[in-house]
Amino acid sequence: MQSFARGLEVIRSFSAQAPQQTLSEVATRTGLTRAGARRILLTLQTLGYVDSDGKLFRLTARILDLGFAYLSSMPIWSLAEPVMEALVEEAKESCSAAVLDGTDIVYVWRVPTHKIMRNTLGIGSRLPAYCTSLGRVLLAGLDDEAVLRCLEANPPRALTRHTITDTQTLLTKIQQARKQGWSLVNQELEEGLLSLAAPIRDRAGRTIAALNLSGQVNRTSAKVAQEQLLPPLLRAAQTLSERLRLGQTG
Amino acid sequence: MQSFARGLEVIRSFSAQAPQQTLSEVATRTGLTRAGARRILLTLQTLGYVDSDGKLFRLTARILDLGFAYLSSMPIWSLAEPVMEALVEEAKESCSAAVLDGTDIVYVWRVPTHKIMRNTLGIGSRLPAYCTSLGRVLLAGLDDEAVLRCLEANPPRALTRHTITDTQTLLTKIQQARKQGWSLVNQELEEGLLSLAAPIRDRAGRTIAALNLSGQVNRTSAKVAQEQLLPPLLRAAQTLSERLRLGQTG
Repeated sequence: MQSFARGLEVIRSFSAQAPQQTLSEVATRTGLTRAGARRILLTLQTLGYVDSDGKLFRLTARILDLGFAYLSSMPIWSLAEPVMEALVEEAKESCSAAVLDGTDIVYVWRVPTHKIMRNTLGIGSRLPAYCTSLGRVLLAGLDDEAVLRCLEANPPRALTRHTITDTQTLLTKIQQARKQGWSLVNQELEEGLLSLAAPIRDRAGRTIAALNLSGQVNRTSAKVAQEQLLPPLLRAAQTLSERLRLGQTG
Repeated sequence: MQSFARGLEVIRSFSAQAPQQTLSEVATRTGLTRAGARRILLTLQTLGYVDSDGKLFRLTARILDLGFAYLSSMPIWSLAEPVMEALVEEAKESCSAAVLDGTDIVYVWRVPTHKIMRNTLGIGSRLPAYCTSLGRVLLAGLDDEAVLRCLEANPPRALTRHTITDTQTLLTKIQQARKQGWSLVNQELEEGLLSLAAPIRDRAGRTIAALNLSGQVNRTSAKVAQEQLLPPLLRAAQTLSERLRLGQTG
């Protein structure tokens, strides 16, 4: 099954920095031999996932079948979109939904506002969990032991002068998020950026995803965010959790 | 390399209808033996793409890394989003971007309006090319021979009483789209739904994607669509093609 892992690595070697690659480039980026990289690229081409002009290889749109399988396999997303859109309409701030994957959060849906300054993170993009409100709320869904394992697996580093990197302080923040049911992170990911997140829970009460609203501190202070953004965010997360429990997919 | 193809099949076997699967279900859906399906699921689990409670398997968010590699590998998408948002703002109709994959179009980006009636097709979803405006514009980017091959590979069938299914008539429509640089499709995919599309071209003049605007016939007749939606759509497609030629990614 190693060939399967290698095949996935070849797919992942394509990026904004490397949208088209020669055989040698793929081999270098994945650590495969040229013969190994060629075999995988030809298989991908036969399956329709890769296209080539004979020299340069690029991914085709068929690749989206794989990621789409994930999105469509979660009933939550058909429920989330209208709730998120109504929230953006009300709060006038961008809303994102994310899940936890190891020590990262992965964005699974996003509804931008039409403001000029906005969060441009796309679906599938990753951020570290410890310094984001979505991450703190998702980590709060784990027990303390799992949280500490996660913080140790990928030690926090300061991304701004506000980033909390001390494990005990982070654990306290996460425990607080667990108790109060939300988290506010103020400029720990990026100077000027503030965000609030709340958990989405399934029937069994497990946190399966989180919703956030993010804004600019120069427009929305932490105090204003808590007064004006938190109530609609909590309502939206609650609505979505309830619909999920009821299994409404329409 | 067959194990690689099978592994991708296992990923694709998860869907909205089958968000969680037992080993037997995966085996049945993919045509693999139980032993074969188990081996692939365990590999996927080791790599972090699949999660399991011991009985039920589900995909994790890491799967999005694969689709995201595709999206992020195309500089067009960082350029497309602001152009599409401005178009939606102006036209007050939903805008989608798609590419051709074999006989299908695959949605790669979408900006919805906040209207109640709207196109809810998500990223990565597919529709047949022949009966959609995006598809006709994308097919118009091929030569006639390739168009005919595509129409023969997946023979058109009537989805509504308006759907054109005759190959020659379709070819004429596609030639017309090629000549005029846009396509209008009126209720051929779905009763009541009308859409207009225009091509996005790269430096070499090749059609690499298409943009559309779609509306409801009871609100927007074909005549009104052509008068009011076509000009802003053509301008947006033009702007995007130009930015792409200039290689502006900021």
